[in-house]
Amino acid sequence: MIENIRLAIVGVGNNTSALVQGINLHRRTGTLVGVRQPQIGGFGVGDIDVVTAFAMSDGKVGCDLHEAIFMPPNNFGPLEAELPPSGVTVRRGLVGAEGIDDVAAAFDGAEVVLYSAPSGRPGTALAYAEAALRAGAAFINTTADPVARDPELLGRFEAAGLPLIGDDLASQFGSSVVHRALLRLLEERGLTLISSYQVNLGGTEDFRNLVENPSTKKQSKLNALGTDRVQMAPLGYLPHLGSQKVAHINIEAQGWGETSVNLDVHLKVHDPSGAAGVNIDLVRLAASAKRAGRGGYPSEVASLLKSPPGTAV
Amino acid sequence: MIENIRLAIVGVGNNTSALVQGINLHRRTGTLVGVRQPQIGGFGVGDIDVVTAFAMSDGKVGCDLHEAIFMPPNNFGPLEAELPPSGVTVRRGLVGAEGIDDVAAAFDGAEVVLYSAPSGRPGTALAYAEAALRAGAAFINTTADPVARDPELLGRFEAAGLPLIGDDLASQFGSSVVHRALLRLLEERGLTLISSYQVNLGGTEDFRNLVENPSTKKQSKLNALGTDRVQMAPLGYLPHLGSQKVAHINIEAQGWGETSVNLDVHLKVHDPSGAAGVNIDLVRLAASAKRAGRGGYPSEVASLLKSPPGTAV
Amino acid sequence: MIENIRLAIVGVGNNTSALVQGINLHRRTGTLVGVRQPQIGGFGVGDIDVVTAFAMSDGKVGCDLHEAIFMPPNNFGPLEAELPPSGVTVRRGLVGAEGIDDVAAAFDGAEVVLYSAPSGRPGTALAYAEAALRAGAAFINTTADPVARDPELLGRFEAAGLPLIGDDLASQFGSSVVHRALLRLLEERGLTLISSYQVNLGGTEDFRNLVENPSTKKQSKLNALGTDRVQMAPLGYLPHLGSQKVAHINIEAQGWGETSVNLDVHLKVHDPSGAAGVNIDLVRLAASAKRAGRGGYPSEVASLLKSPPGTAV
Amino acid sequence: MIENIRLAIVGVGNNTSALVQGINLHRRTGTLVGVRQPQIGGFGVGDIDVVTAFAMSDGKVGCDLHEAIFMPPNNFGPLEAELPPSGVTVRRGLVGAEGIDDVAAAFDGAEVVLYSAPSGRPGTALAYAEAALRAGAAFINTTADPVARDPELLGRFEAAGLPLIGDDLASQFGSSVVHRALLRLLEERGLTLISSYQVNLGGTEDFRNLVENPSTKKQSKLNALGTDRVQMAPLGYLPHLGSQKVAHINIEAQGWGETSVNLDVHLKVHDPSGAAGVNIDLVRLAASAKRAGRGGYPSEVASLLKSPPGTAV
Repeated sequence: MIENIRLAIVGVGNNTSALVQGINLHRRTGTLVGVRQPQIGGFGVGDIDVVTAFAMSDGKVGCDLHEAIFMPPNNFGPLEAELPPSGVTVRRGLVGAEGIDDVAAAFDGAEVVLYSAPSGRPGTALAYAEAALRAGAAFINTTADPVARDPELLGRFEAAGLPLIGDDLASQFGSSVVHRALLRLLEERGLTLISSYQVNLGGTEDFRNLVENPSTKKQSKLNALGTDRVQMAPLGYLPHLGSQKVAHINIEAQGWGETSVNLDVHLKVHDPSGAAGVNIDLVRLAASAKRAGRGGYPSEVASLLKSPPGTAV
Repeated sequence: MIENIRLAIVGVGNNTSALVQGINLHRRTGTLVGVRQPQIGGFGVGDIDVVTAFAMSDGKVGCDLHEAIFMPPNNFGPLEAELPPSGVTVRRGLVGAEGIDDVAAAFDGAEVVLYSAPSGRPGTALAYAEAALRAGAAFINTTADPVARDPELLGRFEAAGLPLIGDDLASQFGSSVVHRALLRLLEERGLTLISSYQVNLGGTEDFRNLVENPSTKKQSKLNALGTDRVQMAPLGYLPHLGSQKVAHINIEAQGWGETSVNLDVHLKVHDPSGAAGVNIDLVRLAASAKRAGRGGYPSEVASLLKSPPGTAV
Repeated sequence: MIENIRLAIVGVGNNTSALVQGINLHRRTGTLVGVRQPQIGGFGVGDIDVVTAFAMSDGKVGCDLHEAIFMPPNNFGPLEAELPPSGVTVRRGLVGAEGIDDVAAAFDGAEVVLYSAPSGRPGTALAYAEAALRAGAAFINTTADPVARDPELLGRFEAAGLPLIGDDLASQFGSSVVHRALLRLLEERGLTLISSYQVNLGGTEDFRNLVENPSTKKQSKLNALGTDRVQMAPLGYLPHLGSQKVAHINIEAQGWGETSVNLDVHLKVHDPSGAAGVNIDLVRLAASAKRAGRGGYPSEVASLLKSPPGTAV
Repeated sequence: MIENIRLAIVGVGNNTSALVQGINLHRRTGTLVGVRQPQIGGFGVGDIDVVTAFAMSDGKVGCDLHEAIFMPPNNFGPLEAELPPSGVTVRRGLVGAEGIDDVAAAFDGAEVVLYSAPSGRPGTALAYAEAALRAGAAFINTTADPVARDPELLGRFEAAGLPLIGDDLASQFGSSVVHRALLRLLEERGLTLISSYQVNLGGTEDFRNLVENPSTKKQSKLNALGTDRVQMAPLGYLPHLGSQKVAHINIEAQGWGETSVNLDVHLKVHDPSGAAGVNIDLVRLAASAKRAGRGGYPSEVASLLKSPPGTAV
């Protein structure tokens, strides 16, 4: 039997909560609902042990991981009535670039480091990647900050036989994925796009951050859709939505004879689940590549990321 | 310059109206809106001349084709303020299997016969195919009646170097196409389908026929979607919709951690346009294959048909 | 303190399940969510004791009421993890008109009889009303069968000082209520209605019955809307919806300058809750009128019924 | 026969365009589509003559009114293929408070002044009102700037026997009107509101102004809805929508037994039509009151305004 993956997690937000809770739910019930691949490289969904976790907020540091994931501003779940203690005490995360060796040591022999902190702190992301490299661990950057897109760093991971995965997680089933699929279908069938818009509403802390710093994300979404006929309405932070994300997508097109075609989509998902459903694959892909001695960027992760190596920073 | 395609049309309903009007609109304005392929085998959208047309209703027979297409129960268009006479007088269609040679003669040297009558009269469809074979013309069956799925007949077309295309037209952008694309996306991204439904409402004569004989069509739609978790609500014939078709599609799924994902789609299209946008390609594909001496079923039409040769009758 | 209402219930379907469970939920938690009037005639939501209940199906007869409400084809709830036994054993309902005195006796001193059986058995409805009259109890007919619209019967209830309430329950918040409100708003604001449709989908046994016998219900719905510009799509029985009901309502109108106004509504409710939320008021109104000696039809119930006395049978 | 209303218009934006075009359409075709009241005080829809119009933009000043209404950034209509010249040349509007007497003179004997300029210039609005008072004309303020809410000014109009109508036009059928009606219905039927949101998207210049100065409008909308459980998503300016406005309204509630009730509304209207459909009534109400010698605020206009006298400034 395969040895479990030893995982270090940086960031104890909703996405980490969804990942940790989902693994526990699977272990208890065997559920494979919403799982893209039951086995990756021989690893099942439950074959992951979190060995250490880092957070920045005073409230979370020092708590058991299974308590910390429910602390505000987290608002995902709970998925189950009870969650036994994890045995992992949340440590204080890195503040600057100092202490990289300490962090490397604190990874406690993890073979994969999942970096799941908020976007917008590129220096911190790079510092954790550096620590992973020193500790001999694979690194996954789920934020929009450029890490895997740093060619020099990628080269060093490759040389060390360590996988480096990133950047910017594509949600398992979010508005960009659905919108893009419909625009492609339109094109395949020969319809002419007249106009299109997308409205995104959410209630998580991550969403609030995006609302306050919309520019990069908006551009990134537009790039993903590959057309300038799509307009993005301003993001709406609506606290009562909690961990739910709501999107309204409209597509106005014309078919044969210039007759109108209207398509309106209303999508409701839980954002942290959408992230965790991808992270569960990335962690297993990273571990599998590492054990096979394949360093650098494993191309099989492409459909799970928005900004892989080689795309614009 | 390539010689225009000589086309015979059987059936002067909404779909024929949309095809004929769209060709004229293109000729006048050069529009390529809603056109999947500007050129097929060297033929542009306007390189088609209707040389003869057959209808069954007393009102249409004897009229110029450009008048007949606006007669009730037709309710599509008009696309333009004025449409000059076509010069083609609508003839009375075949009633039984008698007179096949007369029909063959009446095709007036057409190289392609487009069979666009209502579904549900398999004998008549076969008789027109027989007439096309005798007249040395390619044959396109857009109805659900089995013609191209008749192996013996297909063999005879093949032997004669004549294309035979069918059966059952897939609309350019209808509810089946959109629903199937979304269900596939769900699967690709690893979500678990819980339930799904589709409601179809329309106001054309074709739609009224379907409402009165729903069984085959419903099963065909379910087959097309490839899952038994989709429920089809009864078709609703709502006359005020005219040539517009409205669909409500719902998909309930679960993602990671068994959290809910809801997707609701509201689609509005003009049904006759959806048919004509496919017929404009089938006619050019048929003419192109015929001129190249390729008889039988041309495999490049597969994505435009629901029941190609080899599928269940 | 006011004495609790003694209630007899005829019919142990989803609506009765929702009523009984909701009363228990209120008693345990004090919740007033979804309650139109906390007090009616001095009665709170919890001041109702079910003293007897009648069903027709072999499975339910002989069971405790709190078990019977979960037996198939019922598919509502449960609202709470546990429901203690009610102490009321479900009795076999009346088959024909024979045995009215036996039924009257079996009401066990109930002051209100709530008739909540399926529509379509007018003789049975009248027999239970007769039994209630003999037993000195108020009678509520929630079905579309004419009971309160029978002037002679209404006169006898009035003479006996017993309330008679009916016919045909209006759901607390169903598609008719929402559609009518929007059509009225349109009119108030001076818009011109062009067309409108309503699609109703449901998964309960009641809904299946309606699908199989749509005519009366459809007409009744159209009457309720008060315009012939509304088209009702065929009802769709989609078992996976369970006790949920889904409606799609479309309104196409024109405003100043003949510009278009489109309104699309997507409504999701739990049908049995919509019935119980009205029944909880009808029972209290009936008891209140009875204790005040007011026989006949109490006009204050008008907005809760579709076919009050005086409307067409 | 009644003498036509002599109307002066301040502001030649989309709303004026819709009003002027709609009056012409009615005169030519007799249409009463989208008209709330065919007759008000004896005045029909066509009984209004524009005698003068003021604009600020260089492009519009000096043009015939029927040309100016189609100049950018206006993007409404045209409703008809041709519109004959109006004979009214657009004059340059007032810049500051100077020249009030000149403006009064320029009103050319108008009996009603319709102030339909952008919101946000309270001084200008008051100056035009002052000019109307001097010229002996009724005044209608459709902007959110406080004019009718100025008690001293209102007193002077009253004393002069001149009507003063305002402030802030309520659209004939906009998202606030629909949202409020649904929230009231919810309450009437006894459901418990859990949460609600409203998304508004538009493509007019007015909408762009609102997006850039959202605060007042947002608060005003929330006030209109009368509950703090509604969240307003940021307004989205999507130029491709043109004069169309799109709203997504969501209502999450609970019914009996705390079961969920979801209501989603998708509304599409033409904003300028919504304004003109109310202005056509306000102008006639103002003229009618003026001719009857009723000065001050005519209470019958209440449902057509958002901020009548007495409400907060």
